[in-house]
Amino acid sequence: MIFKTPTKYFLVSGASEGYTPLNAFDGALIQAGIGNTNIIKMSSIVPPHCKLVAPIAFPPGALVPAAYACITSDVPREIISAGVAVALPEDKNQNGLIMEYSAKGDRDKIEEVVRNMAVEGMKLRRWEIKDLKSIAIEYKVKKIGAVLAAVVLWG
Amino acid sequence: MIFKTPTKYFLVSGASEGYTPLNAFDGALIQAGIGNTNIIKMSSIVPPHCKLVAPIAFPPGALVPAAYACITSDVPREIISAGVAVALPEDKNQNGLIMEYSAKGDRDKIEEVVRNMAVEGMKLRRWEIKDLKSIAIEYKVKKIGAVLAAVVLWG
Amino acid sequence: MIFKTPTKYFLVSGASEGYTPLNAFDGALIQAGIGNTNIIKMSSIVPPHCKLVAPIAFPPGALVPAAYACITSDVPREIISAGVAVALPEDKNQNGLIMEYSAKGDRDKIEEVVRNMAVEGMKLRRWEIKDLKSIAIEYKVKKIGAVLAAVVLWG
Repeated sequence: MIFKTPTKYFLVSGASEGYTPLNAFDGALIQAGIGNTNIIKMSSIVPPHCKLVAPIAFPPGALVPAAYACITSDVPREIISAGVAVALPEDKNQNGLIMEYSAKGDRDKIEEVVRNMAVEGMKLRRWEIKDLKSIAIEYKVKKIGAVLAAVVLWG
Repeated sequence: MIFKTPTKYFLVSGASEGYTPLNAFDGALIQAGIGNTNIIKMSSIVPPHCKLVAPIAFPPGALVPAAYACITSDVPREIISAGVAVALPEDKNQNGLIMEYSAKGDRDKIEEVVRNMAVEGMKLRRWEIKDLKSIAIEYKVKKIGAVLAAVVLWG
Repeated sequence: MIFKTPTKYFLVSGASEGYTPLNAFDGALIQAGIGNTNIIKMSSIVPPHCKLVAPIAFPPGALVPAAYACITSDVPREIISAGVAVALPEDKNQNGLIMEYSAKGDRDKIEEVVRNMAVEGMKLRRWEIKDLKSIAIEYKVKKIGAVLAAVVLWG
């Protein structure tokens, strides 16, 4: 095994204006509490027995795997939203599934879509869902804005 | 060294319909046998002395580095294809090269392109090719579909 | 902790023609001296006490985290540029910030933008800047070209 399997996870979200789209993304990461880490994007599983914890204050510059949705916009007054959902299985020896979604539109709609995505992903696996967690955020762009929702893993 | 260098690799492919493009991608990962892992995308080298193995059943939620091509489409009846190629050098102390390609079009065409890409990459390095492996897959979209081809590394 | 925190970093850039956009990207990585590694993209922090070093000759196929900007173009005679900037804080116990930017346009303009992006990112954190490093590269496309600028981490 090259990497250790994560044992903890948490959900966060953030939104920000920025000087450029990448600055807005950086600001959204900061607001989410993970702005001073090195996020490595991954597809999208919560390992079995991985525990939901309160957000962790990582050492600065730590390499941290995360599944996330992010959208930026430079259209003033546009509403953008991002959400993530985690579906956990009845069978504790099976893994959970993370889904990510971001789009123009308000938070409730994006959160509903991403929760449905997680439900559909568990149906595909023919696994019963024990718990469905989600987080979503919306933002009204001033000049250049970003929203981010993430499931962060740690071990 | 932060990460260990991989010592094993294998090629897989999958295709799927899905409720959204991300669900279709998830389904393609499942069909490829890597749907319950956390895939970390990387560019695109097979280390020297890395061995081709039969697909590995990873622990659920494991963090797994892979080079992959993926395309999604929501155009009914569209044919989409994805392929990966691995060119291995005559000199066993040199690394192999992975190339990825996905597009509209049938499998044979995409596989030919990705094989040529790997050949061109070895030419650029002025390395002789000992072996050229590839895998490709095509899919005819119903409503929302995805195809994926991947070289998965492990150690 | 799943991954070790990096302790060294360096800045590189490269440009190349290629048979396809991915081949051009591969050529740019080679010219940058990191073409035979497995680059894992990350967002974008230099950990505290991380040392600027001369470019490292990695073992072939090594998994290497990097923050990078890349742009490809298939428009003959188009000028494309990529740059990265690293802003380091006065307080040595705080982390540095990496910004990446690529676009059509000449090197000086892209380097100016990416340096401003790093300055803005430090303003957002309300941290004084001690040092601001950057690298940028431009390329005039023949048929299919790519430019890349990267901050590579190692430990």
